[in-house]
Amino acid sequence: MKLDDLYSELTLKTGAKLVLVVLDGVGDIATTAQNEMTPLEAAATPNLDALVRQGCAQGRMTPVAPGITPGSGPGHLALFGYDPIETQVGRGVIEALGLGIELGAGDVAARANFCTLGARGIVTDRRAGRIETPVCEELCALLSKKIKKLGDTEVLIKAGKGHRFVVVFRGKGLEGPLTDADPHREGLPIPAIQPVDAASAKAKKTAKLAAEFYSKALPLLAKKAPANGFLMRGIAHQPEIPLFEQRYGLKPACLAVYPMYKGLAQLVGMTKIEGPETIGQQFEKYLSEHGNYDFFFIHYKYTDMHGEDGNFEAKKRAIEDFDAALPILLRKKPDVLAITGDHSTPCFMKSHSWHPQPVLLHSACSGSDKLERFSETGANLGSLGLFEAKFLMRHMQAHARMFDKFGA
Amino acid sequence: MKLDDLYSELTLKTGAKLVLVVLDGVGDIATTAQNEMTPLEAAATPNLDALVRQGCAQGRMTPVAPGITPGSGPGHLALFGYDPIETQVGRGVIEALGLGIELGAGDVAARANFCTLGARGIVTDRRAGRIETPVCEELCALLSKKIKKLGDTEVLIKAGKGHRFVVVFRGKGLEGPLTDADPHREGLPIPAIQPVDAASAKAKKTAKLAAEFYSKALPLLAKKAPANGFLMRGIAHQPEIPLFEQRYGLKPACLAVYPMYKGLAQLVGMTKIEGPETIGQQFEKYLSEHGNYDFFFIHYKYTDMHGEDGNFEAKKRAIEDFDAALPILLRKKPDVLAITGDHSTPCFMKSHSWHPQPVLLHSACSGSDKLERFSETGANLGSLGLFEAKFLMRHMQAHARMFDKFGA
Repeated sequence: MKLDDLYSELTLKTGAKLVLVVLDGVGDIATTAQNEMTPLEAAATPNLDALVRQGCAQGRMTPVAPGITPGSGPGHLALFGYDPIETQVGRGVIEALGLGIELGAGDVAARANFCTLGARGIVTDRRAGRIETPVCEELCALLSKKIKKLGDTEVLIKAGKGHRFVVVFRGKGLEGPLTDADPHREGLPIPAIQPVDAASAKAKKTAKLAAEFYSKALPLLAKKAPANGFLMRGIAHQPEIPLFEQRYGLKPACLAVYPMYKGLAQLVGMTKIEGPETIGQQFEKYLSEHGNYDFFFIHYKYTDMHGEDGNFEAKKRAIEDFDAALPILLRKKPDVLAITGDHSTPCFMKSHSWHPQPVLLHSACSGSDKLERFSETGANLGSLGLFEAKFLMRHMQAHARMFDKFGA
Repeated sequence: MKLDDLYSELTLKTGAKLVLVVLDGVGDIATTAQNEMTPLEAAATPNLDALVRQGCAQGRMTPVAPGITPGSGPGHLALFGYDPIETQVGRGVIEALGLGIELGAGDVAARANFCTLGARGIVTDRRAGRIETPVCEELCALLSKKIKKLGDTEVLIKAGKGHRFVVVFRGKGLEGPLTDADPHREGLPIPAIQPVDAASAKAKKTAKLAAEFYSKALPLLAKKAPANGFLMRGIAHQPEIPLFEQRYGLKPACLAVYPMYKGLAQLVGMTKIEGPETIGQQFEKYLSEHGNYDFFFIHYKYTDMHGEDGNFEAKKRAIEDFDAALPILLRKKPDVLAITGDHSTPCFMKSHSWHPQPVLLHSACSGSDKLERFSETGANLGSLGLFEAKFLMRHMQAHARMFDKFGA
């Protein structure tokens, strides 16, 4: 019997409210440069401290597998309870979601960017001299206007930042992944797009379509040097992912500010609640939507953003800002509240990392780990131990008393 | 997608230097007989303590699976990052490696020992009255002289301690495992050797060869009572193991003193650096070979040896001796340094055990677990948690920044 099937079989409806707060990249490491402190340890978090003293279970989570640093995609899929290695989402799809494109199952998306082509189609600058965003937007508008459809397939083109954009093919019988239309270095022509799996008729059809797109788009750019060409990478279809609501018996909502996280939530069928821009507003929205959903995914970006900048003070302050807003959420305290990150983003490393993120779980039956605060070193001592992030949802369900007893 | 494939896909070349120091059997348990201390806790380790205070991540490792006590073979294969259950090495192979025989892929090795045969070939003493080593050596020399080849197959015979020896068949198209030529109790004849997999033509051929060996060797021993017969067990070929260098993109070297550990390193393709006899000399050799390899496996035997003797004081002193030499290694501090054991060897038990061994990891991004020392109880509180030993290599690679981010 598969473990997922066992969980499904044991799942009960209870009407409990569950909240997952993701402080993106909150996990960190204590280094001498930071006074042997992590931002979580250095931050003044009176509200979080009070919650911990009321009784919380703490632990640490391996985001994917030992030593593996996840991007936001696998990091969040694991938090949503999906195996991040089994359920892989192509880069094109993530990029499209990040630009706010509403992808449907089967849509094929590609990360694209303008480039400079020289004589005989040789790529002379893979980034088209890093053209500015307004230029990119103008060129995307041109392509969009001229290429709306290829046969029955709809083509969506959306500008990103600088020279970057996204192309989505929406039609029947399409499938990725396809090989990159990118020589990955200068001095070579753009290689022809091939299906990665040569046996897939759908992928073959999609590759043909992408070639047709090239043959129509390139002439439109011919006089637009330095942006007289473009490359496409990570061409993949949106995978069919079992819906969150069916998987857990919970009606889910997403309260995120940045498109990438809204997109990831949408992938698993969460309803996106639009409007809020600050963590305080997100919590207010949770209060007003409390009756309409069973599960709320609340995403907070700034811990990661400042970690990526290596700005310890700013990451610390971002945690303090979250803490200051926390009482709003607690006005209607959910039955189960989990606070964690999708991975660590140590200031010292200025990047995502593989270090297990700390996690805090509060419910009527979380008990107390007799810790004073929520921190990495504290979480090392917690009752949840070290576990794979994909099991957090199962812990939350258990704390919501959603699982029947297994066996007599 | 298999996890190993994901690791391979994400692996980058970085030029980092990684060192794995194995204090064989270092893990222990605190008992009242030992003043509630483990040897690691009782030992004075000023250099290790200083390293811990500079910032280390600690944890404990399950050598194979809960409750399973490994021999040196599985213990080290796990440390080298191979699944010790999937990658099993026959006892004959381990024994041959332990005697310093340079095995090649496809060589079939057997643990053998002299025994006493009575009337009609009945085994009357499975250990031939525990003959002394010089007698065993003499008999092995006799067999070696008379049986150099069986057809095209070379036969190597090497004496071990007491009544023990090893037989290696080196030729084309050989394969184990074969059933034991050992009744496993007295009063029965030596059973005929069979291939374990009856469908393997190679194993059938090898079984025939082993029978031929018996028919030639037994007459030579007829007048040598009590050693007028011999038994063979664990007859297996050296498995093809994916090479360490291909698996990790690291050029590995082995600095071990005892043949068994050199042999295990050789199994995965490490270069054996000969010469050093003390841990200080091993560290000196690391300094002089620093530029020639990316990964150094440094093996220290005495922690295990004294644990097996139940000699707490001696095991403690062995740790202190290691600590005293540690500054030599740190003269060229590797980018990633792991210090651990291949298993525990509690003095109280006088044997290997299943107790998870403590592990310490030091790198620029190991952070600090805010522990004062390296010990079993300290490691229980560390950020690495409890994990399977086969993932240590993946942790080391991550700390060497050898893994690209997974997903966008």
